[in-house]
Amino acid sequence: MGNTNTATLLVSCPDRKGLVAALAKLLYEHGGNILQAQQHADPVEKMFFQRIRFDLSELDISRDELEDLLRIECGRFDMRWQISYGDRTKRVAIFVSRFEHCLYDLLIRHRLQELPCEIRLIVSNHPDLGPIADQFEIPFHVFLITKETKLDQEREELALLERERIDLIVLARYMQILSEQFCDRYTERVINIHHSFLPAFSGARPYHQAYERGVKLIGATAHYATLDLDDGPIIAQDVVSCSHRHGAQDLVRKGRDVERLVLARAVRWHLEDRILVHGRRTIVF
Amino acid sequence: MGNTNTATLLVSCPDRKGLVAALAKLLYEHGGNILQAQQHADPVEKMFFQRIRFDLSELDISRDELEDLLRIECGRFDMRWQISYGDRTKRVAIFVSRFEHCLYDLLIRHRLQELPCEIRLIVSNHPDLGPIADQFEIPFHVFLITKETKLDQEREELALLERERIDLIVLARYMQILSEQFCDRYTERVINIHHSFLPAFSGARPYHQAYERGVKLIGATAHYATLDLDDGPIIAQDVVSCSHRHGAQDLVRKGRDVERLVLARAVRWHLEDRILVHGRRTIVF
Amino acid sequence: MGNTNTATLLVSCPDRKGLVAALAKLLYEHGGNILQAQQHADPVEKMFFQRIRFDLSELDISRDELEDLLRIECGRFDMRWQISYGDRTKRVAIFVSRFEHCLYDLLIRHRLQELPCEIRLIVSNHPDLGPIADQFEIPFHVFLITKETKLDQEREELALLERERIDLIVLARYMQILSEQFCDRYTERVINIHHSFLPAFSGARPYHQAYERGVKLIGATAHYATLDLDDGPIIAQDVVSCSHRHGAQDLVRKGRDVERLVLARAVRWHLEDRILVHGRRTIVF
Amino acid sequence: MGNTNTATLLVSCPDRKGLVAALAKLLYEHGGNILQAQQHADPVEKMFFQRIRFDLSELDISRDELEDLLRIECGRFDMRWQISYGDRTKRVAIFVSRFEHCLYDLLIRHRLQELPCEIRLIVSNHPDLGPIADQFEIPFHVFLITKETKLDQEREELALLERERIDLIVLARYMQILSEQFCDRYTERVINIHHSFLPAFSGARPYHQAYERGVKLIGATAHYATLDLDDGPIIAQDVVSCSHRHGAQDLVRKGRDVERLVLARAVRWHLEDRILVHGRRTIVF
Repeated sequence: MGNTNTATLLVSCPDRKGLVAALAKLLYEHGGNILQAQQHADPVEKMFFQRIRFDLSELDISRDELEDLLRIECGRFDMRWQISYGDRTKRVAIFVSRFEHCLYDLLIRHRLQELPCEIRLIVSNHPDLGPIADQFEIPFHVFLITKETKLDQEREELALLERERIDLIVLARYMQILSEQFCDRYTERVINIHHSFLPAFSGARPYHQAYERGVKLIGATAHYATLDLDDGPIIAQDVVSCSHRHGAQDLVRKGRDVERLVLARAVRWHLEDRILVHGRRTIVF
Repeated sequence: MGNTNTATLLVSCPDRKGLVAALAKLLYEHGGNILQAQQHADPVEKMFFQRIRFDLSELDISRDELEDLLRIECGRFDMRWQISYGDRTKRVAIFVSRFEHCLYDLLIRHRLQELPCEIRLIVSNHPDLGPIADQFEIPFHVFLITKETKLDQEREELALLERERIDLIVLARYMQILSEQFCDRYTERVINIHHSFLPAFSGARPYHQAYERGVKLIGATAHYATLDLDDGPIIAQDVVSCSHRHGAQDLVRKGRDVERLVLARAVRWHLEDRILVHGRRTIVF
Repeated sequence: MGNTNTATLLVSCPDRKGLVAALAKLLYEHGGNILQAQQHADPVEKMFFQRIRFDLSELDISRDELEDLLRIECGRFDMRWQISYGDRTKRVAIFVSRFEHCLYDLLIRHRLQELPCEIRLIVSNHPDLGPIADQFEIPFHVFLITKETKLDQEREELALLERERIDLIVLARYMQILSEQFCDRYTERVINIHHSFLPAFSGARPYHQAYERGVKLIGATAHYATLDLDDGPIIAQDVVSCSHRHGAQDLVRKGRDVERLVLARAVRWHLEDRILVHGRRTIVF
Repeated sequence: MGNTNTATLLVSCPDRKGLVAALAKLLYEHGGNILQAQQHADPVEKMFFQRIRFDLSELDISRDELEDLLRIECGRFDMRWQISYGDRTKRVAIFVSRFEHCLYDLLIRHRLQELPCEIRLIVSNHPDLGPIADQFEIPFHVFLITKETKLDQEREELALLERERIDLIVLARYMQILSEQFCDRYTERVINIHHSFLPAFSGARPYHQAYERGVKLIGATAHYATLDLDDGPIIAQDVVSCSHRHGAQDLVRKGRDVERLVLARAVRWHLEDRILVHGRRTIVF
């Protein structure tokens, strides 16, 4: 985690011969030592995905020079690529409304050093969770949102996020839909969590619907936020079992457990640069 | 399981005082010894559900007399009730098409004495699985079905089921929709299995859709068949996890594993008289 | 949960006829309305266990009179019994050392009203977690323990618990073994959590041993504390999967997740009077 | 699966720089196209593990030449290596005693094309399961074993396995301990399955002990057989939950479900060349 001498390279491109060799050679020739590498070739879409974690401590060129070389090499193969460095801790903003379970879970995991990031600030459209932010000494910003003020308030939020150089936004049960300006600005950098049921329920009070339908499982899905709110690329999912003995309130409680677990998992994977997005899918190494 | 001296009573009715005492007293006064009892009071719908398994060996009245008394007592409380006897083994028909995994699973579990029933016959709309029926020496009946012959063929099937006094029909990946005449005749006595996804997919080739969408879980749901095929009361559900490494064929394989597990679970619970249906829900004791 | 007009009766005794009827009749005759009842007859040990949750609002006798009647009736059947009332909230003490994940989890669940109890105090043999107690405004008592002071300090602790009329002690990763005087005083009222591995590892640094052995699952067990520390009646268990990719630190992290989940489950079940102990086993209704 | 134009290379060696580049380059230079590659560097033991699946169809040298080159290259790095070819189907022998659930499961999965192998023969120390072998038309060999005949019978078995050029032996609930001569001959090529409990139970009738102890989980472990029978490198593990409602027979049933699932998983992983053994651990890619 966050080792200061490591970098992680994520690449995706149309599959073709020699991809693994080309990148391995480039790194090897300049003193980069590969610590971990995973690759996946999608046989249906003929796409290639790779994650390389490597040691920089004996690199014989500068990071800028390395990135220049990568730019050239990745250009040759039409690669989409990104690199992140272990000594450049990601900066996170958490968005919340009134539910506290996911927020608490992230704050505690951060404290336990499970999440290699800096939690710079918490944004909310309600003042309610301010005291929790205080407990953990994180700046808390309230942006009250009405239909009329929404776009303006979002602009303020975006300015704040910009100022704080935020890398990742976590919607920890944030009950507002992000507008197009927001989604476009932070593509694949906003993680959302929502409940999932088998079968799916639309409309209000899904846990009550689930109760009435007598489902035996309830679940949660973490995904990158897109304009179509609950339809972005899925990062993680899980379920817990339930029975007729569980009333709607019990289902809500079980939902909390699975939501916070799944959200934390997705956030950790993002922070560890494990996730590649391709169309509506993710590859999680 | 299937102990010859036991009976199982399932009752459901509007909740009111004295229900537990009334039935316990009736059984106790006539020498019926309660071995297991579970009850559930639904606080939302104000309904009462109970399962009582009791020992008949010191019953001081006949079974007919007991049923008469139950009829009177249950009448007092508007109870829906049913009784089954451990020495009256349930008679099962399995319906299949061309997938064999659920059929095999049921036959082997039956052989291992996990399913307290007699498997009287296998019905199929294809001849393909006949050899498996032969392996286990179960009569195999083919009813080829076209749009034109469907209702006639179903009538033949119903006559066969009648003749064989079938108690439970298991649709073990039977790829035909049952008509209204069939569903009405065997209400809450037909168990179906189908795949379940988060999110749900409609249309053809759901496993391929799941692959394209990059789901991280695939599941299966067993339910009582109703006219609205996949929407009957849910009996059991389960999921298995998957990842980008699993192609559509791997998802199909994983789907088989969870389908056969969930179907067998639902069938066993039905055979052990553990399931009560109320509206679109089940109570599984 | 904690409904003020309800009571929960737990009974266990040698199995014999008429047990269900006797208690149902007693409650019914005095206006107690059974809301939920579960029973279990152990066919091996010929024991009977029952949990009855009933409504007191139309009871026509006092609670003392009810308990007198129960004492007589339970006496007839050699029943071990206990009753608790929904308006008598249980009082809990949490014992911790230096690990905070279980403590945090209990405090947050309590705040989310998942745990029907009052958390009266936190006891620790280290000062480290004091600030967390402060965050949640719970009194924090440090009892430093050395080999020499152990029995004396425990006596102080027992006096404090007595004074606070504590009903349940939760060892939330408390790294001290309780002495005989303590275990005897709070039999079946101390819940402990510990990690569990397949296969089991004895000795120090179990997560490192698990890593070296390449286990694919790590788990946790919650149980009532007995003198033989990790061998008391098991209340709840769960596991999470792991692989060669998880270093010892990852296993520790996964262990935290499963420990806190399993401990909270066990505590909730105890607070809801769902657990009966028989010898080295629990029955959890 | 079993694609005729692919090969899979498994290597392990002390970790050092340039390993990935060296193998990628070797394959690339001779027209081998890497389809999948996973690697793992163990930071504790400083070991490197890699699995490379590559396409042979445009290889510009013969397989023998390729292996010569690999021998040289792997020699340079002290690599332990093995290669297998998709058109060289592995040959499997299944060993059984009297339990049929694992045998059936393997035979059905094989039929469903989940296991890329040829099941050449079944060996048993009892005649009981012969009819199942007949159902699936697999040769069935009985080797009755007593203390006196054990070594002789094993020698006969080994001769048979040799004759049939068996690559993998699956102990599908085979209730005999293999002798040293056997284990030595088929190191890391014998997969065994056994039940696993939390806590562990030694001695006879483990399911009855688990019942008496009131465990809430029962599990199974698949591992490579070693002389110390249940202590070989773990390949796969899983558990199912249980409760006081499950008698010893129910635990046995649940045990069967998890045993067959875990065994099939381990066998499939072996057949797909996903497993590397290092000391007492496995790396499963």
